[in-house]
Amino acid sequence: MLYVQLHLTLPAWVHDEVDAAADYTSDDAKMALAIRLSRLNVAHGTGGPFGAAVFSGTHRLIGVGVNRVVPQSTSIAHAEMMAFATSQQRIQQFRLNAEGGPVTLATSSQPCCMCYGASVWAGIDRLLIGARADDVESLAGFDEGPLPSDWAGELEKRGIEVLRDLRREEACTVLADYGRSGKVY
Amino acid sequence: MLYVQLHLTLPAWVHDEVDAAADYTSDDAKMALAIRLSRLNVAHGTGGPFGAAVFSGTHRLIGVGVNRVVPQSTSIAHAEMMAFATSQQRIQQFRLNAEGGPVTLATSSQPCCMCYGASVWAGIDRLLIGARADDVESLAGFDEGPLPSDWAGELEKRGIEVLRDLRREEACTVLADYGRSGKVY
Repeated sequence: MLYVQLHLTLPAWVHDEVDAAADYTSDDAKMALAIRLSRLNVAHGTGGPFGAAVFSGTHRLIGVGVNRVVPQSTSIAHAEMMAFATSQQRIQQFRLNAEGGPVTLATSSQPCCMCYGASVWAGIDRLLIGARADDVESLAGFDEGPLPSDWAGELEKRGIEVLRDLRREEACTVLADYGRSGKVY
Repeated sequence: MLYVQLHLTLPAWVHDEVDAAADYTSDDAKMALAIRLSRLNVAHGTGGPFGAAVFSGTHRLIGVGVNRVVPQSTSIAHAEMMAFATSQQRIQQFRLNAEGGPVTLATSSQPCCMCYGASVWAGIDRLLIGARADDVESLAGFDEGPLPSDWAGELEKRGIEVLRDLRREEACTVLADYGRSGKVY
């Protein structure tokens, strides 16, 4: 019998911990949420140390994501993928900026090779990144996978602005704490 | 209110059209199924012209996928992603080859930049490709996105064998028919 259904969820604590009605006006506030999600995901034992959030216009939160790979036995359930997909479900558009932008993704760590590609199709205008790929690999032991040599330039070419090193130290602290726990999957 | 659920489905025709118990022993038979899925997906109006299937060992079908981007308003719902995720759900492993391989993905067209990255994490040992990226772009008008310059070599480095041009003409026919319909999303 083939499986024809895919049902993925975010942890229940998301409703309690995330203020969906707040104004996330600055890039700093957007990144702070993404990093807080990464930390809470580890604290609650609900997945790996990665968080992401999608914002519409200057300040409105559309959706969030955390890594759910191990709890849900699904390799595609990275934080950015969960944020893209749940946000698209909410607005019922397969391009997040279909009805106008800018749409921003804030992610606690540089997207891996899969989430990088997904960022090209999701309909975002801006990509905010906390920790660098090197940080993810050296502090938490995760492989980021093969990327185009000028990965940021390729996004810029497609109209996606890339901002790096936002609250990088804080993002790295979450990765380092996770790395020390020895739980890397 | 944030969305914390993601529910994606394959079309109902999958149960009628796919023989889940058959032996897909040869690479040719594996690719024939992937291409048939791509054609049926267009014929039934259930998504874009892409199909994929996951096989365990020499011949056993584990799961299938077709493109569901437009019907389900989700940019991550490419054929390969649906095949990976539904197969992982079935065996309850986030690495398809966690309990031994080889695991093979057959896909009607070369994976785009997202599905390429997903192939690195899914736990496959072999990647069978029908149409080339150039075919997808020239015949059906889809962008394949930015890839590492030696994308196949990067997979081989990670132990994933890449075989190209399997039943390429047949795969191209589906793409060309779709391209002529002018429906490209």
